[in-house]
Amino acid sequence: MTTSVEFFFDFSSPYGYLASNRIERVAERHGRSVIWRPFLVGAAMKVNERKPLARVPLVGDYAVRDVQRFARYWDIPFVIPSHWPVATVNACRAFYLLEETDHDAASRLAHALYHAYFCNDRDISDRETVVAVASELGHDPIQMTEGIQTDEIKQKLRSVNDEALARGVFGSPFIIVDSEPFWGADRLEQVDHCLSHGGW
Amino acid sequence: MTTSVEFFFDFSSPYGYLASNRIERVAERHGRSVIWRPFLVGAAMKVNERKPLARVPLVGDYAVRDVQRFARYWDIPFVIPSHWPVATVNACRAFYLLEETDHDAASRLAHALYHAYFCNDRDISDRETVVAVASELGHDPIQMTEGIQTDEIKQKLRSVNDEALARGVFGSPFIIVDSEPFWGADRLEQVDHCLSHGGW
Repeated sequence: MTTSVEFFFDFSSPYGYLASNRIERVAERHGRSVIWRPFLVGAAMKVNERKPLARVPLVGDYAVRDVQRFARYWDIPFVIPSHWPVATVNACRAFYLLEETDHDAASRLAHALYHAYFCNDRDISDRETVVAVASELGHDPIQMTEGIQTDEIKQKLRSVNDEALARGVFGSPFIIVDSEPFWGADRLEQVDHCLSHGGW
Repeated sequence: MTTSVEFFFDFSSPYGYLASNRIERVAERHGRSVIWRPFLVGAAMKVNERKPLARVPLVGDYAVRDVQRFARYWDIPFVIPSHWPVATVNACRAFYLLEETDHDAASRLAHALYHAYFCNDRDISDRETVVAVASELGHDPIQMTEGIQTDEIKQKLRSVNDEALARGVFGSPFIIVDSEPFWGADRLEQVDHCLSHGGW
C-alpha cells in the first residue's frame, strides 16, 4: 500500500480546481500525501468519443451553473473564465519542470495556476502567462521559458498522458486511492470514507 | 414557490434508483413532498449526442464500480441487472396510469419497480413483469395490462418526455427545487442545502 493519493487533473477542469482546494486536507487527515498528476484529459475524451462539457448542449449550461453553485457550497472563490476550456500543455510542462527537483514547489505552482485561471481569469494556455505565474512564486522566468520547451519535459508530459490512458483515467479530477478510482470533485466524501476504512 | 420537489428519473438509471431511496427523506425534512416524474432519458441523450453510460468505453466500467460502491456507502441493496440499460416505457406508463387517481400508489409502484430491477434482477422492460410487480401491490393485472396500452397513457408519457426536454432535463436523476436544477444522486446533499436555505 502506498502512502500517497494520486490526484489526476486537467488545468482547464473547473471540477479539478474545486477538488484541488480540498484534496490535501482529505489526504492529510489520514496521514497520506498527494501526488499531483496534471495531464491532458482531451486525449482520454477522444478515446471515449466524449466532448468537453462546455460543448455539450444543455449539459454545458448546467455545468456552468453547477460549478458556480458547488464553489459557493464549499466556499471557494471562483469565476467562469472568459475562455473555457483552454489548452493546458504549457501549464502541465511547467508543473513537471518544477516537479523534477521540488515536489512542494510544483504543487504550489499547480495551486497558483488554478487560481490564476479560475479566480483571476488569466489565460493559462498562454506560455508567457504560465511563466509569469511561476515567476510570481520566485522562479526564474528565463529558466522556466527554456525549461518548458525541452524535449525532455515534452516527453515527460506525453508519458504521463499515456500512463493516464493506460490506467483508465478518463476524466478530471480522477483520484486513485491505492487501486480504487474515484471520478469527480463530488466523490471526495467517498475518498475520505475509503481512506478511513482502508478500502471498500 | 411550490411545496414540492420534482424528481425526474429513468427506471433504467442506477443513480436514479440510488436517489429514489433518499429523495423523500430529504424533501420531508424540509416540509416538502416529492413529485415523481419517470421519463425516458434516451430522447434527451440523443439531443445531446450522448450514449448510455454502459456503452461509453472506460466510463461504463467505472460507472458499474461507482454505483456498487455508492450503494454500499449509502447502505442500499443493489445488484447489477443482467440487462442494463433496458427500455422502460411500460414501467413509466404503469406509473402514470396509477398516478391519475392515486399519487401514493404511483410512488409505491415506482419504488417496487426500481426494487424489482436493481435488487431482484427482474426485467422491467417486459410488460408482463411490470404488471406482475403492480399486482403484487394489489393492483388488478387485467386493468393494468389494458390501462397501459391506451392512447391516453401513451400520450401522457409523451407529454412528460416533451416537458422534460423543454425544461432542460437531460439526465437521470434530475431534481428541480423551485427552479433550481440538480443532476445526479451525488447532488442530494446540495439539494438538502438548497432546501435549508431557501435557494442559493
